[in-house]
Amino acid sequence: MNSTDIQLDIEKVETSRIDQVDFSNLQFGKQYADHMMYCDYIDGEWQTPKIVPYGPMEFEPSAKVFHYGQAVFEGMKAFKDDDGQIWLFRPEQNFERINKSSKRMAIPEFPKEHFFASLQALLKLDQDWVKKGQGNSLYIRPFVIATENGVSASESDRYRFMIIGCPAQAYYNKPIKVIFAQDYSRAADGGVGFAKAAGNYGAQFYPTKLAKEKGLDQIIWTDASSHEYLEEAGTMNIFFRIGDKLLTAPTNDRILDGVTRKSIIQLAKDNDVEVIVDKVSVKYIVEAARKGELKEIFGAGTAATVVRVEGFEYDGEYFDLPAIDKPYGTFFKSSLQDIQYNRVEDPHGWTVKAF
Amino acid sequence: MNSTDIQLDIEKVETSRIDQVDFSNLQFGKQYADHMMYCDYIDGEWQTPKIVPYGPMEFEPSAKVFHYGQAVFEGMKAFKDDDGQIWLFRPEQNFERINKSSKRMAIPEFPKEHFFASLQALLKLDQDWVKKGQGNSLYIRPFVIATENGVSASESDRYRFMIIGCPAQAYYNKPIKVIFAQDYSRAADGGVGFAKAAGNYGAQFYPTKLAKEKGLDQIIWTDASSHEYLEEAGTMNIFFRIGDKLLTAPTNDRILDGVTRKSIIQLAKDNDVEVIVDKVSVKYIVEAARKGELKEIFGAGTAATVVRVEGFEYDGEYFDLPAIDKPYGTFFKSSLQDIQYNRVEDPHGWTVKAF
Repeated sequence: MNSTDIQLDIEKVETSRIDQVDFSNLQFGKQYADHMMYCDYIDGEWQTPKIVPYGPMEFEPSAKVFHYGQAVFEGMKAFKDDDGQIWLFRPEQNFERINKSSKRMAIPEFPKEHFFASLQALLKLDQDWVKKGQGNSLYIRPFVIATENGVSASESDRYRFMIIGCPAQAYYNKPIKVIFAQDYSRAADGGVGFAKAAGNYGAQFYPTKLAKEKGLDQIIWTDASSHEYLEEAGTMNIFFRIGDKLLTAPTNDRILDGVTRKSIIQLAKDNDVEVIVDKVSVKYIVEAARKGELKEIFGAGTAATVVRVEGFEYDGEYFDLPAIDKPYGTFFKSSLQDIQYNRVEDPHGWTVKAF
Repeated sequence: MNSTDIQLDIEKVETSRIDQVDFSNLQFGKQYADHMMYCDYIDGEWQTPKIVPYGPMEFEPSAKVFHYGQAVFEGMKAFKDDDGQIWLFRPEQNFERINKSSKRMAIPEFPKEHFFASLQALLKLDQDWVKKGQGNSLYIRPFVIATENGVSASESDRYRFMIIGCPAQAYYNKPIKVIFAQDYSRAADGGVGFAKAAGNYGAQFYPTKLAKEKGLDQIIWTDASSHEYLEEAGTMNIFFRIGDKLLTAPTNDRILDGVTRKSIIQLAKDNDVEVIVDKVSVKYIVEAARKGELKEIFGAGTAATVVRVEGFEYDGEYFDLPAIDKPYGTFFKSSLQDIQYNRVEDPHGWTVKAF
């Protein structure tokens, strides 16, 4: 990223908390880096971004975010290479997507210069929180919340844009079992499924809890109208390998346009793997599983990178997906990580120096 | 309500703010009564409810409510009769519904005794905030938010249940113009539309903003699959009068089971008005409007009570609904208010003394 002329108000911590953190034993999303950024939208304008020590903030109980879920977020990662340089992976994609999400949620878009100047300053201050080594990263969470005090159901006139960071190891460390949704739904046509709107996630917790009670880890959501087409997994997009071909659902107004998803589609093309971006019928996948043609299912997302699905339940039946030799999932995961950790050439210019 | 043995921790304000409020010129949801209740869920248990002066509270930026919209709410009103007695209207309905909403959002249910004991104590303390007179009430907002600090997308292990109150005059003071949704949707089958989940509301702000730019006030949402059936208006259920019959959509997993809606259905029965609870087809309503058979549309909800729709837009065409003599809307509104303000007999036992 280039430095900019954006003014930032910076208040550094007196003493870093980094020594209190056991980086070899991190629980995802539980420890936060020393600093955070916040920037308020007041009287129709985004104010000067402030970088301050991470910590609690005061909100009135009537703040609209508590009542109407007018909130969006993003997930990004910073990686440190063997030389100690910190890299971001396609950060422009996250910046553009948070504004796309904001627009759908009637939240004012955030200025690009504010975003990148703050991110750069934050990563410079908290650079020791980004650890070298495979799987390590600083997970970066930009988010926007409605802060007007008022319990009337209309868009807020005040917002707070924030960035917080937490050191992360691999998000899923083992293959997962999923269930194809038949009753519950994640998003409606004409709804907010394509946005990283806060409410999309909370709405999945109960059906996911029911799935977990059956020994499954995640739900693969289907279209709400017919439950005939597989869409995404709520925190990941989903890929299916049939024979040597890769299949994934097209994005639409119900499905998140994932950065990892589109990077994998590009990597597949680069490596002469045929990718079909088309509706994925449940019936087709179940039949392919029965015939032994379904070789792999894997999820792709920033938090998870790539995670293998070892089996799925559909209509009361469980389908096992035995591990195979040279799975695509592993290949794409290591290809992505090689780029993210600056270990190989980056032909698409995806990685960007943090500062 | 009966007093209970529930322990409450009560800290009273030193000086009431009531003298600073101009009760003849209230903006809905902008002034708050002196006290609020909060009750935390920690280690699998709801703790002792606390009643404290209304004011800001500290939250960590990583609190799950900010990221995943895991939050639900209710809306109720307290009314003061001419003798100064305060009444609640069907409060059990709101209590039951907040737990129904909570369940769908993977939030632990709140104990009935905690709810009613706190509400009673709160209303006793803030009784002067409930003003006599037609249209005046104390709007009561119970809500629950996820307070665990952690940016991983799973249900929280901590929650805060709160009740705040704000003095209110009539919510909508003039008839509204609406548009029948053709592109955007409010809820999916198998989703959370039936719940008062925070994210359901934020998701409507952008389409509503677009409607407002066209000079319309609200959207009447249609089913997400076909947009052929009229469902609800986001903050209100909707009734249509065709000739002398009243028509309203049945509740389902997309539609809120409104307390005002079910009270109006009962009042209609009491007054020999035929009510048809069935799918309301857009085509049927548009044709009825063309033929002059559509006499009224009105919305029904706690905040709005009953609000007249003076016209609707559909498919680029605007349909005017001229005011008629003796509209049902006005009749049901005054019948409801007579009961709410304890001016008439209450045959169904809907009103409950606040303390």
